[in-house]
Amino acid sequence: MIVILKQNPNKNQVEHLKTWLESKNIKIHESVGDSHVILGLVGDTSQLDKDLISALDIVEDVKRVQEPYKKANRKFHDEDTVIKVGNTQIGGGTLTVIAGPCSIEGEEQMISVAKSVKEAGATILRGGAFKPRTSPYSFQGLGSEGIELLKLAKKETGLPIITEIMEISQLPLFDEVDIIQVGTRNMQNFNLLRELGRQNKPVMLKRGMSATYEEWLMSAEYVMASGNENIILCERGVRTFETYTRNTLDLAAIPVLKKLSHFPVIIDPSHATGKSSLVSPLAMAAVAGGADGVMIEVHNNPERAWCDGPQSLNPEAFGKMNKKLIALHEFMKTLDD
Amino acid sequence: MIVILKQNPNKNQVEHLKTWLESKNIKIHESVGDSHVILGLVGDTSQLDKDLISALDIVEDVKRVQEPYKKANRKFHDEDTVIKVGNTQIGGGTLTVIAGPCSIEGEEQMISVAKSVKEAGATILRGGAFKPRTSPYSFQGLGSEGIELLKLAKKETGLPIITEIMEISQLPLFDEVDIIQVGTRNMQNFNLLRELGRQNKPVMLKRGMSATYEEWLMSAEYVMASGNENIILCERGVRTFETYTRNTLDLAAIPVLKKLSHFPVIIDPSHATGKSSLVSPLAMAAVAGGADGVMIEVHNNPERAWCDGPQSLNPEAFGKMNKKLIALHEFMKTLDD
Amino acid sequence: MIVILKQNPNKNQVEHLKTWLESKNIKIHESVGDSHVILGLVGDTSQLDKDLISALDIVEDVKRVQEPYKKANRKFHDEDTVIKVGNTQIGGGTLTVIAGPCSIEGEEQMISVAKSVKEAGATILRGGAFKPRTSPYSFQGLGSEGIELLKLAKKETGLPIITEIMEISQLPLFDEVDIIQVGTRNMQNFNLLRELGRQNKPVMLKRGMSATYEEWLMSAEYVMASGNENIILCERGVRTFETYTRNTLDLAAIPVLKKLSHFPVIIDPSHATGKSSLVSPLAMAAVAGGADGVMIEVHNNPERAWCDGPQSLNPEAFGKMNKKLIALHEFMKTLDD
Amino acid sequence: MIVILKQNPNKNQVEHLKTWLESKNIKIHESVGDSHVILGLVGDTSQLDKDLISALDIVEDVKRVQEPYKKANRKFHDEDTVIKVGNTQIGGGTLTVIAGPCSIEGEEQMISVAKSVKEAGATILRGGAFKPRTSPYSFQGLGSEGIELLKLAKKETGLPIITEIMEISQLPLFDEVDIIQVGTRNMQNFNLLRELGRQNKPVMLKRGMSATYEEWLMSAEYVMASGNENIILCERGVRTFETYTRNTLDLAAIPVLKKLSHFPVIIDPSHATGKSSLVSPLAMAAVAGGADGVMIEVHNNPERAWCDGPQSLNPEAFGKMNKKLIALHEFMKTLDD
Repeated sequence: MIVILKQNPNKNQVEHLKTWLESKNIKIHESVGDSHVILGLVGDTSQLDKDLISALDIVEDVKRVQEPYKKANRKFHDEDTVIKVGNTQIGGGTLTVIAGPCSIEGEEQMISVAKSVKEAGATILRGGAFKPRTSPYSFQGLGSEGIELLKLAKKETGLPIITEIMEISQLPLFDEVDIIQVGTRNMQNFNLLRELGRQNKPVMLKRGMSATYEEWLMSAEYVMASGNENIILCERGVRTFETYTRNTLDLAAIPVLKKLSHFPVIIDPSHATGKSSLVSPLAMAAVAGGADGVMIEVHNNPERAWCDGPQSLNPEAFGKMNKKLIALHEFMKTLDD
Repeated sequence: MIVILKQNPNKNQVEHLKTWLESKNIKIHESVGDSHVILGLVGDTSQLDKDLISALDIVEDVKRVQEPYKKANRKFHDEDTVIKVGNTQIGGGTLTVIAGPCSIEGEEQMISVAKSVKEAGATILRGGAFKPRTSPYSFQGLGSEGIELLKLAKKETGLPIITEIMEISQLPLFDEVDIIQVGTRNMQNFNLLRELGRQNKPVMLKRGMSATYEEWLMSAEYVMASGNENIILCERGVRTFETYTRNTLDLAAIPVLKKLSHFPVIIDPSHATGKSSLVSPLAMAAVAGGADGVMIEVHNNPERAWCDGPQSLNPEAFGKMNKKLIALHEFMKTLDD
Repeated sequence: MIVILKQNPNKNQVEHLKTWLESKNIKIHESVGDSHVILGLVGDTSQLDKDLISALDIVEDVKRVQEPYKKANRKFHDEDTVIKVGNTQIGGGTLTVIAGPCSIEGEEQMISVAKSVKEAGATILRGGAFKPRTSPYSFQGLGSEGIELLKLAKKETGLPIITEIMEISQLPLFDEVDIIQVGTRNMQNFNLLRELGRQNKPVMLKRGMSATYEEWLMSAEYVMASGNENIILCERGVRTFETYTRNTLDLAAIPVLKKLSHFPVIIDPSHATGKSSLVSPLAMAAVAGGADGVMIEVHNNPERAWCDGPQSLNPEAFGKMNKKLIALHEFMKTLDD
Repeated sequence: MIVILKQNPNKNQVEHLKTWLESKNIKIHESVGDSHVILGLVGDTSQLDKDLISALDIVEDVKRVQEPYKKANRKFHDEDTVIKVGNTQIGGGTLTVIAGPCSIEGEEQMISVAKSVKEAGATILRGGAFKPRTSPYSFQGLGSEGIELLKLAKKETGLPIITEIMEISQLPLFDEVDIIQVGTRNMQNFNLLRELGRQNKPVMLKRGMSATYEEWLMSAEYVMASGNENIILCERGVRTFETYTRNTLDLAAIPVLKKLSHFPVIIDPSHATGKSSLVSPLAMAAVAGGADGVMIEVHNNPERAWCDGPQSLNPEAFGKMNKKLIALHEFMKTLDD
């Protein structure tokens, strides 16, 4: 950590700061410049609160040299996290394809989509039971009934299942769910994250709509800090000025997260763009860019979708795309690194 | 609602859509253009799901003519919402000044700040008990103990109190709290909003870091939809590319929200900018721009702040600023409208 | 074009508007809703100024049904634009790899990089002669001397060359340049665009740092409107809140631009991210996502780069990556569409 | 400047860097941390290229301690810049009100608006002759004829005039123009800035649509670096995700620019919001927030505006607002600082 002092700082206050830092076993290297004095802090600076030090009258700026996340950090946890669910795994060179309807609408729909995505090669089944909707008047999902239908689809197909949690109190309903999804609006619902860290199901953490990589990894750190290391990161687009697509998909997230952390990275082109015609090219881009997998919305009847229809593929389009994804993934393995 | 059909749409599907719309008592005005057919829908279109219709194969675009929020809408609720708490009110021409520490640290600090902000003319006392912190290793607030200290400060000063809730389960602790604050990260925590709509304490809803006005008002609609009409909106800056300030304070929100809705509008320049030297000019700007009040962080010892220190004023600076705010507010009343 | 009138509009003004529209051979379809009257305008609405109509007292909103660009529009120009330069082409199924130094520093550097990128399979040579630099005190490029060195490198390698223009008066220097690049800061330098439309060299138009797809295509329209149809679009990242990468590369631009327009699309991962370690995965993603090519910064000695060094690859890393890009491009052709 | 070295850097390269820095009369303070070595550079670091040093293999990050702008910097130029034009001045405690039509349409309109804004107390007359329009098919302004009309209006009213330049070659037409405006799209047209620095008319530099404060001040530095110190900064909103307003007006720019630099700051609420109903509250906010003035679009017949109509006030509304602005400005002077 580097502390840049203001010009002509109060000397007593500087001494006070140094004494306090030394009491925390921090060594201080002082550089006296023409205009500023700079303190280089050496030791376990992760215990120091950057905001606290920035607040001091004598301090102009504080800069971290090390990332504020530790357990999520590739530097301290070099091996890739690989997550096993059912007969498949996420990370470790496997291509994960999570597919299913945005919103679970009924038994026939759920089972029909589940069977068709399994046939097309999906490895994990998704379906929304609790839906975060902008309007209180929109359909909010089937709730626990939806989870029952998802579990039925799991039984029918053998695919592991993933669905979104919106509140701590819903946790008991997730007993047979294989992966718990945290949505973009809850990425910084810290109480929920902490609670999910106390149980041991894998957590797929979607990026907040305007979250930086660092904030995202700090949210993963919350889950890890309470004991759960099984985290998957899912990029789903960030909010920008562009309105043609719903969000702007940030595929740089793939190599960035791979470098900074050790988690599997899944890309969701369906929610990111909100347009089904963009899903396939961006899923291909994701796989070529090194993603561990994609999450794709599939609907058996887009014309009757209860929510988020424009971004759904039908099973046929999904099947066609998935063939290409699998072939591309195989091809990528043939390339030297 | 206007539905723009794709070029050369399937005629059966168009008939199917029309029949379905008519079954919902929607009248359809059809305009046949050179390139597109446009359907103008007349009737209670708030029951229609824009996403559902957009999803149809034959539809190019759907545009709402009316806002999707109703109870929050000035058009259907013309009179200004005025909220009474203790001996003061928010809205209705009163200047509300909410002041206090970002984070409650102990009895001495809380009582001391409370007394000094009261003396300086604050009308409502704030203090953070549950703190949403980016890092799991940062101080997370004193929790229920903090609320007790805030209640003590209320007793000492007679000021109504406001503090932030982070989770439904914390609600019982808020019994003697006068206003419940929903923070920027929870603006779309729909379960929490719905629950806060079921109780009757006023709710101050901070704008999400990247929320549009419409999304913000839809969140207010959630609270109103479950029965609670006592809502205050608080602008606290939005996330942009600028990094010098923590966020970009959007003062256009004041006249925009006044036009679109009927809620009191409070401005928080402390969190928006993260820099204490910017607080006073922006608080002045807010009052001149028509805000119902401001929320200001005040600290008795910025050098020992446990969080968010750089944006805090000390009591003396706060007092000086508040005098100006009050004078400006009085001056504004002398101007013709 | 759809015109939504305000509630209870002045009738005389409405008649006035209708008469004016009819005088322009626009037919009007009127839909009377519960709250609003909507006018559907039929005819050549591209001649109408949306802003002019929005300005009217009686108008609440105006929405275009058709895109405001015509010559750039896929709907009116269905075949893909393919641009021939030297012995290569851009678009039409060819993989274009533009490579070279960000900034031309001297003969030895330019020739050495040119030879090595040619050997590694680049199809077009780039090099910056006029450099748009944020600071007046930074190196601004070698100017006309740089262009001479680039021409020398063209002679040595046979590769077509591309370099950036910053001002109309520089145009005579571009006589032997094969493609003229318009940088992100000049995407809306309308005078320059118009002038580039009056000559016939291909123009590569980089996306403005915060330009929407529509604005970008309108800038292409400027060039086409003055007569030059040889336009290449280059996505180079947009400005967001994320600071880890220099910009956020928007790969959705590839399928979006392919759908809306007919131009070749080139991706520049070097400038977008500002980090050399991210270049290769994003270049791969671009090719799998359907881009016509990539633009890559290559430097023979990153340690002595005069500008933008952190994002440069050395020739060896470029060669390794380019092999993969070419293999991936070949592989993509084997997939059914 | 602080240079953070990578972990275990190549020692020869480190020595090479140090020798090179010392050859430039930079002193180096080395701090050896647990994980990183940090070099504190002391001396005239403004000559060093941050990008160059960042590019080195052994460097993890480089952080500037001092701002990269010098002449624009309050630290090196403490007194406020005050600009005299005609009988008025900008800065130094004067309230500047720049008013007039967005686009000059004809003699009658120009003279009529000029007279009415003068009567209402405007101090400077604006009018657009060269208009940067997104579409090549929109009205592009009357050009030199427009400047003639503006000069006529100056003769009639005695008000100094300001209008926008779009290209260096237009400069001779600006002989009798009092202030040259550089628009948002040209804020980083460095050739134009440099040229405007070589003449001595005041330059009003509008903020780029997505420019940081630092980039904006660097553009002012370009003008100053070629010799012209008469610069006015104009905040006109930045691009965000919000679509209800055209841009998001950033009033924090006022105190920030006053702190970092010495230039007068003008606020343009008309272009920022694109909505006439928001102009007055934001103009008031600007004056209370410490702005040196505002720029307001006024139109004698908003219904026939050729461009940007929705944001224009008519002379009556402008007059009413201007009275309030003047009264507020007088009131502000009565407050202690």
